[in-house]
This record gives sequence, C-alpha cells and structure tokens, in this order.
Amino acid sequence: MHLYESHIPSGNVYKIQLLLAHLGIQYETTTLNILSKPSETRSDEFLKLNPSGQIPVLVLDDGTALAQSNATLYYIADGTPYLPRDKVGKHKVLEWLFFEQNSIEPYVAVLKFHTYWGNLATMSEAEKKNLKDRGQTALDSMERHLEGREWFVGDAYGIADIALFAYVVHAEVIGFQVGDNVKAWIKRVQSTEGHVPIRKDPTGQCPL
Amino acid sequence: MHLYESHIPSGNVYKIQLLLAHLGIQYETTTLNILSKPSETRSDEFLKLNPSGQIPVLVLDDGTALAQSNATLYYIADGTPYLPRDKVGKHKVLEWLFFEQNSIEPYVAVLKFHTYWGNLATMSEAEKKNLKDRGQTALDSMERHLEGREWFVGDAYGIADIALFAYVVHAEVIGFQVGDNVKAWIKRVQSTEGHVPIRKDPTGQCPL
Ligand SMILES: N[C@@H](CCC(=O)N[C@@H](CS)C(=O)NCC(=O)O)C(=O)O
Ligand SMILES: N[C@@H](CCC(=O)N[C@@H](CS)C(=O)NCC(=O)O)C(=O)O
Repeated sequence: MHLYESHIPSGNVYKIQLLLAHLGIQYETTTLNILSKPSETRSDEFLKLNPSGQIPVLVLDDGTALAQSNATLYYIADGTPYLPRDKVGKHKVLEWLFFEQNSIEPYVAVLKFHTYWGNLATMSEAEKKNLKDRGQTALDSMERHLEGREWFVGDAYGIADIALFAYVVHAEVIGFQVGDNVKAWIKRVQSTEGHVPIRKDPTGQCPL
Repeated sequence: MHLYESHIPSGNVYKIQLLLAHLGIQYETTTLNILSKPSETRSDEFLKLNPSGQIPVLVLDDGTALAQSNATLYYIADGTPYLPRDKVGKHKVLEWLFFEQNSIEPYVAVLKFHTYWGNLATMSEAEKKNLKDRGQTALDSMERHLEGREWFVGDAYGIADIALFAYVVHAEVIGFQVGDNVKAWIKRVQSTEGHVPIRKDPTGQCPL
C-alpha cells in the first residue's frame, strides 16, 4: 500500500495511519506540500487519484486509489474487528463518520489549521465565533452520547472512535470545552493496543 | 417507515424523499420546527432518535432509527439499482457522499440557509467570501470529474448523484458559478424516472 500524506501533520491522514498501525499493515508514503500555492495536491497526476485534490489517498497494491479519509477507514476496516459485521452496526458507524465530516471537521480541524498554520490573527471575531459555536455544539453531542458508554458504537473500539479522535484529541488546547465523558474516552482511545499519536510538525509551527 | 423532517424544506431531508420516491416506498412524516429557539429537534425524545439533534431521521418499521442523510441513503439503497454491488463501487459512492458532507454541504447549504432564512444581510463580507470560495472549489471538482461522464460513479444514476444534487441544484441561484458539465448533469438527474423536486417553502421566504 502507498499513502499520500502532507508534510504538516493532517488529522485526516492520521486516521488512516492509526487504523493501519492497529492492523499491523506496512505501507510506503509520498509527502506533498499542501501549503505551496497551488498545493501539490492540485497536480494533474494527483487529481487523477483524487478528483477533489486532497490528501489522504491510499493506493492499494492492485492500483485502486481510495480517497476521503472516512470512506478509506470503512473500506480497510471491513472484515476486521474495527467495523461491526451487521447492517445496523455498520450504519451506526457511518452515522458517526458523516457526523465527523459534517459537524466536527469543518469547525475543529479548520480552527486548528488557522491556529497553527493559517491566519487566526487576521480572522474576524464573527468568523472565529462561528467556528467555535458550531464545533462546540458538535462536541456537546459527543459528550451526551458517551454518557454511560465506552465507545461510540456498540461495546468495541472501532473506526467511529478513530475518525472522531483524530481532531477531538486537540479540541481543548485550541479553545473548545471538552466534557468529562469525552476526556475519559480520549484516554481510553490512547490506551488501546497499538495506539500511535499523530506525528510531530516538521515546520515547528504546531507544538502538539 | 416514518420520516422526521422540517417545516422549511431541507436538502438533507429531500435526499431521502427523492430516493424513496424512486423506490416507490410510502412513508409517514412528522414535521418539526427547526427555526424555533431551541429547535424542536433538541427535545429529549428526538435526541434519543438522533444524538446530534438534526433532521432527517428515518424510522424503519422495526423501530430502527436511521440518522445522517447520506448514511440513510446508503442503508436504504443497498441491494437496489441505486448502489453498486461490488466493494470498490460502494467505496467510490462513499467517497462522493463524504465529499458532499465535507466540501459542499457546509458551504452551499449554509449559504442557501442564510440567503432565505438566516441573516445574510448581517454577515460580514469575509464570512460570505469564505463560504463562496470553499463551495466554489468543491463545485469545480465536480465539474472536472463530470468531464466525459454522465453520472458520478460508474455508468448509472445512484445515491452519489442524489446526495450531490440536493443542494447543487440551487447553487447557481444563490451565487455560485456552475459549469456546463454540472448543468447538463442537473438536467439528467431531473429527467430520471420518478424524479420529484424539493417541496415548496410554506413560509414563502424561499421562492425556489
Ligand atoms: N474530506 C476529506 C478532507 C481531506 C482534507 O481536508 N485534506 C486537506 C489536508 S487535512 C488537504 O488535502 N488540503 C489541501 C488542499 O485542499 O489543497 C477527507 O476526509 O479525506
Ligand atoms: N449531517 C446531517 C446534517 C443534517 C442537518 O444539517 N439538518 C438541519 C436541517 S438541514 C437541522 O436539523 N437543523 C436543526 C438543528 O441543527 O438544530 C445530515 O446529513 O443528515
């Protein structure tokens, strides 16, 4: 397998790296500069792998290119303990994967990006407030759902937890309020067998 | 089946209604007011159906509650001509479903909401520009992908088209640039057998 990633650490890439680490799957990487103008993900060659011009892309040994981090998690986890086998269990996982992409990522990941690599200083208060309010509403839903639960779906750690963990692990340090249930769940995820943290930022802009 | 929807027309609800119309499946509806403060989707009863407090929710006859529009499309379309049967085909559909929730919906749907029911007049130019730029980038990816293609995945109309159509059909009227490939695809979707348009806004605020 071959993973296309970015030089600055990306939570969307990290999801794939975390699942592959749990599964003990080896892979090669190509690292693209996504801060250059235009981003190296906009080359004709890369757009053939992913029409939306974004990392991560995971290329399987038969040449199949998998884009969209959460779709890739679903493809790779199918048949492993990281995805339920029954149709309703699979649906519940997809619910949280879509929630992550629609309600967490556009706010928590975007605020993280602006905090370390973007232009937080020049963003208006209204823009920052919008990201914070929408991200906080989503984090509050997670907190409520975890009441009396260890994991997001059923009673096993799986790709819904992996997808949500990728950005939520840093939500508090970039200014969100993270409740006790989510904090305890973050610790549980970090204690799973084979867990690896997101890698360091080689530019040094992000200290996490 | 029982569909929870909103009084003002929602593209996310419409996706489900369009698929059910194609499949000839009958259902009952409960209509919630999402403009009240708090939204009627935040009741304890509704939060049990969907922890993130949003419509649509589709409750199956056995009581299973399906939340997240695109996850629900995937569940219902499985085994029908609206979803490929092979694993890579299914993955390609999920790629576009996640793209829709991450790159189209947070920008095109949010701008549509602010245009007709929200506070476009009081939004700053920077906020509007952010929604327009990000939405436009995503629409441009769709335009590129449709070059030489009739449908988003394979050679058949399916739930990737349905999910993308729900908001993109109104992208031009709210100020985005929509290319010729996307325009031709919109016409093709509207000509499919059993197509239904999104229903009218009973408040009259949205003329579409
Ligand atoms: N929905 C996509 C989002 C991927 C994404 O946002 N990738 C960013 C880095 S985290 C990227 O490639 N940015 C460069 C660009 O958009 O040009 C996924 O889940 O894979
Ligand atoms: N990711 C969700 C988004 C659903 C959504 O945004 N629903 C809106 C109406 S279009 C809603 O329920 N808003 C009321 C609220 O958030 O309180 C999906 O695809 O189902």
